[in-house]
Amino acid sequence: MGPVGTESSQPGDGQIAWKNSARLADGREIIYFDETPALNRALARDLREGLAPVPAPGTWSPEQAVRWDPLLGEWVIIAAQRQERTFLPPPDQCPLDPSAPGRPTEVPTDSYDVVVFENRFPSLRGASTIPGPKTGPAGPAGPAGPGGPDLDDGLSPQRPGYGRCEVVCFTSEHNASFAGLSPRRVRTVMEAWADRTATLSAMPGVEQIYCFENRGEEIGVTLHHPHGQIYAFPFVTPRTSQMVARSRAYTAQAGRNLFDDLVAAEQAGGTRMVAANEHWTAFVPPAARWPYEVLIFPTRRVPDLAALDNPARAAFGELYLDVLRRFDRLFGTPAPYIAAWHQAPVTDAEARRQFGLHLQVFTVRRAPGKLKYLAGTESGMAVWVNDIVPETAAQRLREA
Amino acid sequence: MGPVGTESSQPGDGQIAWKNSARLADGREIIYFDETPALNRALARDLREGLAPVPAPGTWSPEQAVRWDPLLGEWVIIAAQRQERTFLPPPDQCPLDPSAPGRPTEVPTDSYDVVVFENRFPSLRGASTIPGPKTGPAGPAGPAGPGGPDLDDGLSPQRPGYGRCEVVCFTSEHNASFAGLSPRRVRTVMEAWADRTATLSAMPGVEQIYCFENRGEEIGVTLHHPHGQIYAFPFVTPRTSQMVARSRAYTAQAGRNLFDDLVAAEQAGGTRMVAANEHWTAFVPPAARWPYEVLIFPTRRVPDLAALDNPARAAFGELYLDVLRRFDRLFGTPAPYIAAWHQAPVTDAEARRQFGLHLQVFTVRRAPGKLKYLAGTESGMAVWVNDIVPETAAQRLREA
Repeated sequence: MGPVGTESSQPGDGQIAWKNSARLADGREIIYFDETPALNRALARDLREGLAPVPAPGTWSPEQAVRWDPLLGEWVIIAAQRQERTFLPPPDQCPLDPSAPGRPTEVPTDSYDVVVFENRFPSLRGASTIPGPKTGPAGPAGPAGPGGPDLDDGLSPQRPGYGRCEVVCFTSEHNASFAGLSPRRVRTVMEAWADRTATLSAMPGVEQIYCFENRGEEIGVTLHHPHGQIYAFPFVTPRTSQMVARSRAYTAQAGRNLFDDLVAAEQAGGTRMVAANEHWTAFVPPAARWPYEVLIFPTRRVPDLAALDNPARAAFGELYLDVLRRFDRLFGTPAPYIAAWHQAPVTDAEARRQFGLHLQVFTVRRAPGKLKYLAGTESGMAVWVNDIVPETAAQRLREA
Repeated sequence: MGPVGTESSQPGDGQIAWKNSARLADGREIIYFDETPALNRALARDLREGLAPVPAPGTWSPEQAVRWDPLLGEWVIIAAQRQERTFLPPPDQCPLDPSAPGRPTEVPTDSYDVVVFENRFPSLRGASTIPGPKTGPAGPAGPAGPGGPDLDDGLSPQRPGYGRCEVVCFTSEHNASFAGLSPRRVRTVMEAWADRTATLSAMPGVEQIYCFENRGEEIGVTLHHPHGQIYAFPFVTPRTSQMVARSRAYTAQAGRNLFDDLVAAEQAGGTRMVAANEHWTAFVPPAARWPYEVLIFPTRRVPDLAALDNPARAAFGELYLDVLRRFDRLFGTPAPYIAAWHQAPVTDAEARRQFGLHLQVFTVRRAPGKLKYLAGTESGMAVWVNDIVPETAAQRLREA
């Protein structure tokens, strides 16, 4: 399919990645992002037999749906078919490794740099660039929203679990970690994230793109191979809706931009800063919820990853790897963490003008051998209790 | 201090509990709810030496504060002094057991029925019925709210961590569980909850009372002795604010009450019902977030526990014990669960007229040996993915 991410601002028009797309045996799409040209990935055929084909567009069951919670006014995803998903396989059965003779995996090539494919056990499915029957995205605004057939009338409408879930493998090395990647590889991962954000945003009925990584068994990771995930939601998520509303209210009141003012205040204050370069700023948020939590903002505010310019894309790896390695050094062992890209809603033009793309990365470890649990206050009331003063967390990360 | 919860609607004016209040060695309040009269608990003195007295009202440090998250518009509690809290002590050092010769505990009597005391490692403190210097509750509505001195200017105001945290011991039996209590004992616990809700609601600057129980190491419980907690928050919690807003919007649109309509719909539909009696209804919510989640509503809508009438208070234990025992039977081992009482805000009169008190109880176990983790979608985007269809969960609970 050709090159993506031409480094047009660099001498020599340096090419970042070559993108090729193919289909797996069950019909799912796989997209390769290679750091060298001329690898014709379309020739690599998935030889697995007996894989059940993905369900036809337009077929839905209550096993895969989104439901409206009338008490909170939020969509909840029901994904019962996921119960069968692969759970901590032994290393020699990792489905994210490249394929080897006699051992076909999810990636039918004998090597790869960065590869993205549709999740075999998706929470949401059906969104596609391929024209087909309308599968009925969930209404974005509530029970009265547009969309497919209601499976359940009344206070809690149910819609098909429409959307898309993709897996991003950061490296073919099973025992590696994101923190161990080269800056060059992070650049390729960034190109994949930006490409997927743009591609998934163009699919009908998709309202938000979410790129994230869960790392560590402590947070329920079921596959150790270094990988992230991408969700294309058929609604704007609760957290994003809340940020959009706060941002609007702030601009209405202060006449300025909330994200810009926050980054400027942290840069000026300095007590919660962790790292920075010309294009990125990393700090512990003033009201951090998690024991060690960092927000990373680009210097030039953009709505999403696809809108980042080449210098920002190029400068991200160095800073992010520095932050991740500080997390790992905090307790002397690899930190379990969640890294979450917060992006603007896809179709809300005003929100896109105001929203500031940022990466939130946090660990659930609060002390050696002790985890932060989401117990009664967090899970019941959505009130976070943080055991560490944010300025102390920032200082420990700076010194790590 | 005398009787509470006179069963005036019953023959013989049956007395439920006798309440006595005293002080622990460090100044914290302890309140006994006894099922027999004439136990003068004020005579039992806490003989522990060397307990640091609780901080004087009006003294605050950044270690104990609430901070405003400008991106989400929510208060976050910082409670760094809690890092030292007791962590899974051996059974013979349980601080919630009654005291024994040579082993003083948090409860300076040799037995008790139900006892409540201020938490030694509180997330919030300072609220009291005793007149004293105003300690500065956090403003309920945002940075512009009324309250004490800002410790940090700018986008993220910080206020003293004002409020109150109490511990409720359900029984003096260390190895018991709530599910193993007698209905008579649950009636006493109910009396304690209602009393604390009324008493804490009367304290200046308190905006919400939250009674809850965390049960099981899987959700971070640090003490095995059967106990719950009560938080008096200086703000309305995010989840409650959201329910209040949805309830208002529903009434404005439909002209009816959201909580009443939800309970009526579940009773009529039946597919998600778990248990019911004349005064209570238990069902799996239509958009359940957790693998096994049950909401328990009183038949007559009330804003909080203090407003429950005697017949409802008396009928609760039988139903709740039935539900808890079904949770324990699901997987053949005691279920780790969170039980959360959702009550109306204290001072919002309109919200109190609309809100429907209910208990939410849910387990984090999704299958034998497998827990539901709050990973990237839940912790990053506040989108819950539930692996079990709510009707299936209800059926399994009915059959358990």
